[in-house]
Amino acid sequence: MISTFGIAAHDAASPLAPWRFERRDVGAHDVHIQILFCGICHSDLHTVRGEWGPCPYPQVPGHEIVGRVVSVGADVTSWKAGDLVGVGCMVDSCQHCQPCADGLEQYCDNGMTGTYGGTEKETGRPTQGGYSTGIVVNEKFVLRVPANLDLAGVAPLLCAGITTWSPLRQWKAGPGSRVGVVGIGGLGHMAVKLAAALGAHVVVLTTSPSKAEDARRLGAHEVVVSRDAAAMKALRNSLDLIIDTVGTPHDIDAEMQLLRLDGTLVLLGGSPQPHPAPGAFTFIMKRRRLAGSLIGGIAETQEMLDFCGQHGITADIELIKADAVNEAYERMLKSDVKYRFVIDLATLAEPV
Amino acid sequence: MISTFGIAAHDAASPLAPWRFERRDVGAHDVHIQILFCGICHSDLHTVRGEWGPCPYPQVPGHEIVGRVVSVGADVTSWKAGDLVGVGCMVDSCQHCQPCADGLEQYCDNGMTGTYGGTEKETGRPTQGGYSTGIVVNEKFVLRVPANLDLAGVAPLLCAGITTWSPLRQWKAGPGSRVGVVGIGGLGHMAVKLAAALGAHVVVLTTSPSKAEDARRLGAHEVVVSRDAAAMKALRNSLDLIIDTVGTPHDIDAEMQLLRLDGTLVLLGGSPQPHPAPGAFTFIMKRRRLAGSLIGGIAETQEMLDFCGQHGITADIELIKADAVNEAYERMLKSDVKYRFVIDLATLAEPV
Repeated sequence: MISTFGIAAHDAASPLAPWRFERRDVGAHDVHIQILFCGICHSDLHTVRGEWGPCPYPQVPGHEIVGRVVSVGADVTSWKAGDLVGVGCMVDSCQHCQPCADGLEQYCDNGMTGTYGGTEKETGRPTQGGYSTGIVVNEKFVLRVPANLDLAGVAPLLCAGITTWSPLRQWKAGPGSRVGVVGIGGLGHMAVKLAAALGAHVVVLTTSPSKAEDARRLGAHEVVVSRDAAAMKALRNSLDLIIDTVGTPHDIDAEMQLLRLDGTLVLLGGSPQPHPAPGAFTFIMKRRRLAGSLIGGIAETQEMLDFCGQHGITADIELIKADAVNEAYERMLKSDVKYRFVIDLATLAEPV
Repeated sequence: MISTFGIAAHDAASPLAPWRFERRDVGAHDVHIQILFCGICHSDLHTVRGEWGPCPYPQVPGHEIVGRVVSVGADVTSWKAGDLVGVGCMVDSCQHCQPCADGLEQYCDNGMTGTYGGTEKETGRPTQGGYSTGIVVNEKFVLRVPANLDLAGVAPLLCAGITTWSPLRQWKAGPGSRVGVVGIGGLGHMAVKLAAALGAHVVVLTTSPSKAEDARRLGAHEVVVSRDAAAMKALRNSLDLIIDTVGTPHDIDAEMQLLRLDGTLVLLGGSPQPHPAPGAFTFIMKRRRLAGSLIGGIAETQEMLDFCGQHGITADIELIKADAVNEAYERMLKSDVKYRFVIDLATLAEPV
């Protein structure tokens, strides 16, 4: 077993605190990674506070992992010590169902294994995430990280990046298409960067006029304040795709009115309560669609990382020390971050 | 002008009553049709009672029209006197926008003209529907009716048939796919017949166990009572497509749970109040889609009629005399019809 040091939730209410635990030994198909950076995703907070169901404490969150390979198992040929790699939201899946065969491991019929809060097949123990010094992962769930990118800014690509990339690709965002992005946070700012780099015309919908300038800097061609009725009316029936990253209930009917014939609104935010329902005619009169999307498969995650390498895209981040995680959670709850906290794991000091 | 006799609503509350009115003269591109049969659609009732917005009284409803060509305009080459023809929910559209160019006239960017309750471009008057002795229609909105079919049973194909055919084709129902149908009424019974004839495995979802036998007779391979929690659970994640024909608010989240990865639920019923909203995770975890669909284009309506001719498909109807329309409306409100009332226009006697 590999002694590892991390930052864990010990119950739903207390601050996260240092915790020493053991990673499994490196199996024939495993890769042992020293973690350099780990992004802080809102899912981390939902999970450790028990808002998405029971959490197996102690729990180390974190699924936006960038690191360097320390060692590999006997049968691993794709990776070697020293490689720059990433790990996202999954560390395992059944590998034989239809979704797995189609490269959609996130929808594995037998259940993918989350990077944290899942159950490690090799040991039966809860998986532990990236707020830690190292991780052992099956080679199939390891991603290549382009060497030309800022590594701390790459970390959020492993969740915020792929979560927005996957629906942009599924619904064919590109030259000639008009893409709306709702919510400019961790996911939304990546949606803007990626959609713009794909060649789409990007319209940011925001409740905060103060975000307009920054949205344009990120790549938006238009910014519409959603409380501006005239601006919203002018945008009606004009968008092919809307990426909605907001995780709390809001008026998606008003957003769907902006979709043209056969347009699609994709929900990415896991709102615990349903959104107010759009009217039936909103769907019927323009054959509009309301859909969802969950992270992305391994192959498309690699595709996204390679695309980001080619286009020089990383997340806008605020790098923090390991002892600032609890403060970062409080600030994240107030949306006081542009646009993602990333933990520098070099600052995770061993206890005395 | 062509003197015509019909059955009209004169206000939102009174029974429909006989009314003499004038059709426009037959223009160069027009077809004058003697109406033989007209189906009664729930939309007729919603419209004349003002439930979908202001209704221009007097109003003759009816958009499931089968008849015989009486005469054609000077430039009409596709139709001749004596042809068996149909007219559905539209009698005009702009003919130059992208949806029109794509054969999706029902989504015309400039607004299609409804068979009743619209505004006739040639005269500026309200369009009047098929509860009448004759109609004058632009040749592009006239459909060929297969001669081998029972003509009264063809009438509902012009709305109930195409409204279910269009999403079945859009979402590729056929051999190997599993299609759910919710609500066994005018639309639902056509969805079952058409999906089965297309080669799909058809699962009827109903609140009424008493409908099971009839659903199987219509072509369903399975019938599940939606209040049977165990049966619904057994069906989870198994359907590719659900055609939901119910026009009142109901639990679409429970239905969406039955969809597999990338499955789609299509709303056809124009519920005046929104359905209770499905949870965000219902969309996200299986990339499920909630969509809508509005009747169908002219080319796909012809495709559907030809398919029905080849497969011997008509609607199950109850043929009524013209003076029984008001009684039929009351019975329709109680779902007391299997599965569509059709008016025999030969019984529409001239007033003394």
